[in-house]
Amino acid sequence: MQDRLAADAAAIQGHFDRVLLDFGTGPVAEAMRYATRGGKRIRGFLVRESARLHDVPEAATLWPATGIEALHAYSLVHDDLPAMDDDALRRGQPTVHVKWDEATAILVGDALQSLAFEMVAHPDCGPPAIRADLALSLARAAGGQGMVLGQALDIAAETAALPLTLEAITTLQAAKTGALILWAATAGARMGGGDLAPLSAYARALGLAFQIQDDVIDVTGDAHAAGKAVGKDAAAGKATFVSLLGLEGARARAAALVDAADDALSCYGARADGLRALARFVISRQN
Amino acid sequence: MQDRLAADAAAIQGHFDRVLLDFGTGPVAEAMRYATRGGKRIRGFLVRESARLHDVPEAATLWPATGIEALHAYSLVHDDLPAMDDDALRRGQPTVHVKWDEATAILVGDALQSLAFEMVAHPDCGPPAIRADLALSLARAAGGQGMVLGQALDIAAETAALPLTLEAITTLQAAKTGALILWAATAGARMGGGDLAPLSAYARALGLAFQIQDDVIDVTGDAHAAGKAVGKDAAAGKATFVSLLGLEGARARAAALVDAADDALSCYGARADGLRALARFVISRQN
Repeated sequence: MQDRLAADAAAIQGHFDRVLLDFGTGPVAEAMRYATRGGKRIRGFLVRESARLHDVPEAATLWPATGIEALHAYSLVHDDLPAMDDDALRRGQPTVHVKWDEATAILVGDALQSLAFEMVAHPDCGPPAIRADLALSLARAAGGQGMVLGQALDIAAETAALPLTLEAITTLQAAKTGALILWAATAGARMGGGDLAPLSAYARALGLAFQIQDDVIDVTGDAHAAGKAVGKDAAAGKATFVSLLGLEGARARAAALVDAADDALSCYGARADGLRALARFVISRQN
Repeated sequence: MQDRLAADAAAIQGHFDRVLLDFGTGPVAEAMRYATRGGKRIRGFLVRESARLHDVPEAATLWPATGIEALHAYSLVHDDLPAMDDDALRRGQPTVHVKWDEATAILVGDALQSLAFEMVAHPDCGPPAIRADLALSLARAAGGQGMVLGQALDIAAETAALPLTLEAITTLQAAKTGALILWAATAGARMGGGDLAPLSAYARALGLAFQIQDDVIDVTGDAHAAGKAVGKDAAAGKATFVSLLGLEGARARAAALVDAADDALSCYGARADGLRALARFVISRQN
């Protein structure tokens, strides 16, 4: 799996490089290239790997796999802004508003969101019905009833009188990080005309496990390995899966979710071992 | 024309109200409703009116007409941010970051951009080929080679050593305001399977005339009538069509562009009188 993840990440990077060449030499174009470098490309891998299960040609999946990574990159650039999480470090590098300025970071995020839709609606993705479906479903996953709603709930939680309950955090994360993971993992079934249900169940478990591990890293990790600030949630007194379940409880919950993710893929048999391995990778990662 | 513009504006507002009901009661949803109220709806009207020329059913055009207004609304909310134009007043009301805060304004703009793509890819817009084409073309018009590029050029001009030339301002405006106007005016031909060329020529002339009139309003208007700050460009020593052509020269250029816009529509005969009247309206407006 790790070999395929690395190969897909390289393919996605190459695709970004080619596409963003056309955007010229201004600061926004430069910062778009900067903001789309690196990262684990888990969402892009989910698109590619779910598409492999449905025998979708690799050439067709490069566009939506890169598109979901463009959308993810936009969300990070805006999330790091001073008015949002105010982070100076991302993937071990200065964030866009630190390296350039706030106006550039706002515009880069805006342009990367547009680029995401340009990519999932691209003619090379396949027949028009698939492209329209990818664009519509991505818009719903990304917007005010999906990822942005999750961001808003996260910000509201910071000033709430009481820490969030486990149920409230689960709802928040299902929107904030879960919606894009769900879109990515089901994209292959959308492209191949398959049933979305098994991959949806897998993605819901994976997304939650992913977030629990993020909370674990925030407590146990160091900034160097994580490539970003850690310990912020605890310092801010924010409720997290770790504060609510304890460190061992959170790890056990994540492990149980990985088992559930495994089980959800039973209809695919051994062909889905790559996705199963990804779930185990997600809860073992340190960044 | 003004009756039809008002009727389309009402239809678009009603559609926003219905769609945004589903977004709940949080601050981002509330601010999305706030940011999509009012405005002249020129872009939405261009979609509807160009579609009428191509006999596209009205029910199908409501989605893309509202979608382009969602995209326009996002651009205004982000443009007004302190790190961008830092405006406190928009359509006579406090801007989103003033009424709420910067984080909410960033998220509202982000969610409105997603909503725009959700709307143009909506099943009610027509067959998948049209929806995919609308989404792809809108993404290109909005992004780092379209509107966002124009915004970036505009910001760069503020700190440039020399004021922009007429050619540079024309290029800037073709991207900043022209790209969305071009998309809107050609949407009807896209939906009806018609030739994009006449409406493209019309839109290029209209977009430039629109921007020239904006510069005229900035010099001659008052904030109350304009519903926003005026005189900012002159105070900042920014090159504008008025500073480069003089007030009368700018007005003459706008009038010539309206004639060109008229001519571009000759193939449509009297059926395009609504679009012709819109062009005259655009250079006579005071806000």
